[in-house]
Amino acid sequence: MKNKTETFISCEYPLSVQKSKKENKTRLYRYRGDFRWRGIKVERYKTYGERDWSEVIRQVIIGSHGESTRFHLRYFEISPKGYTSFERHKHEHVVVVIRGRGKVRVNNRTIEIGYLDTIYISPDTPHRLYNPYEEPFGFFCIVNARRDRPKPVKISSRKRG
Amino acid sequence: MKNKTETFISCEYPLSVQKSKKENKTRLYRYRGDFRWRGIKVERYKTYGERDWSEVIRQVIIGSHGESTRFHLRYFEISPKGYTSFERHKHEHVVVVIRGRGKVRVNNRTIEIGYLDTIYISPDTPHRLYNPYEEPFGFFCIVNARRDRPKPVKISSRKRG
Repeated sequence: MKNKTETFISCEYPLSVQKSKKENKTRLYRYRGDFRWRGIKVERYKTYGERDWSEVIRQVIIGSHGESTRFHLRYFEISPKGYTSFERHKHEHVVVVIRGRGKVRVNNRTIEIGYLDTIYISPDTPHRLYNPYEEPFGFFCIVNARRDRPKPVKISSRKRG
Repeated sequence: MKNKTETFISCEYPLSVQKSKKENKTRLYRYRGDFRWRGIKVERYKTYGERDWSEVIRQVIIGSHGESTRFHLRYFEISPKGYTSFERHKHEHVVVVIRGRGKVRVNNRTIEIGYLDTIYISPDTPHRLYNPYEEPFGFFCIVNARRDRPKPVKISSRKRG
C-alpha cells in the first residue's frame, strides 16, 4: 500500500491485514422503506476518536460483504441538531442527499443541500455535515475502499456553521 | 496499469494516455429536478460497439471533471421499452434505483427493482437492465474509475427477459 494509506472498512477500523472472507457475489439489497435496506445493519457513525459528532447513524450498503469494488457505498443519517466530525483526510467524499435537507461546511463556506444534490469534497478539504432542521437528513456517501484515517480539525470559535 | 486494464472515462473511450486537465476541487452539482443536475450533460449511453441497446441516456455526475476518486458516479435512464446491452466485464456494478422501476437480468435470473433497491453485480456476471413499464426507469450506477471494456454476451433466444 502506498503513501502509508491504511484500509478502513466501515470508515473506522484499520484492517490492513484482515481480509473479508465473505463471498464476492451478485447480491440485491432490497429497500425496506424508512431508509433501511434488507441485510444491512444500522451502526454508530464512529466508534473511535473523540466524541466530536452527535446524532449520526451509518449503514454500509456496499463494502462489508466481500465486494471487490474499489469504493464503498454508505448511507448516513443525521437527526435534527446532529452533526458529523469536522475533519480532513486525503480521500475524497461524494455525497448524494436522499432524505430531507441539511448543511455542509467545506473550509469556511457553508452550503445548504437537499434532495439529490451531489457534492464532491476534494482531498484534504476540512468538512462537516450537519442538520439544523426538524427532519432527518440522510445521504449516500461514497468513498474509496482504501483510504486514510480522518484527522479532526480544530474550530477556533464555538459555532459549527 | 496492471492486468491490461484500460481506463475508460464515461464508460466508453479508452483514455490510457489522456488525462483530465480539469481542476480537482470541491464542487456542488445542484439537482435541477426531473433527474438532471446543474453542470452535468445528458449523453448517449454508448457511442461505440453494436447497437445492442435502446432508449438509454447517461449522465456522468462524478468522473469527468478532474475528480481523483477511484470510482465514477453515473446516472442512467431507460425509457419505456428500452434496454441496456447484455454484457459482461471484470469490473463490478453498484446500481441504486432512484426513478421508477425496471428489471435486471443477471445470468439467467431476472429481478424486479424499484426505488432505492441496491444491487451489486459481481465481476464477469452477464447482465442487462431493461424497462418493460410505462414510466422512465432511472438509477445511479457506480463503477471503478479504472475498468475494463464490456464484452457483449450472445443471447440464444430472442427474448430479453
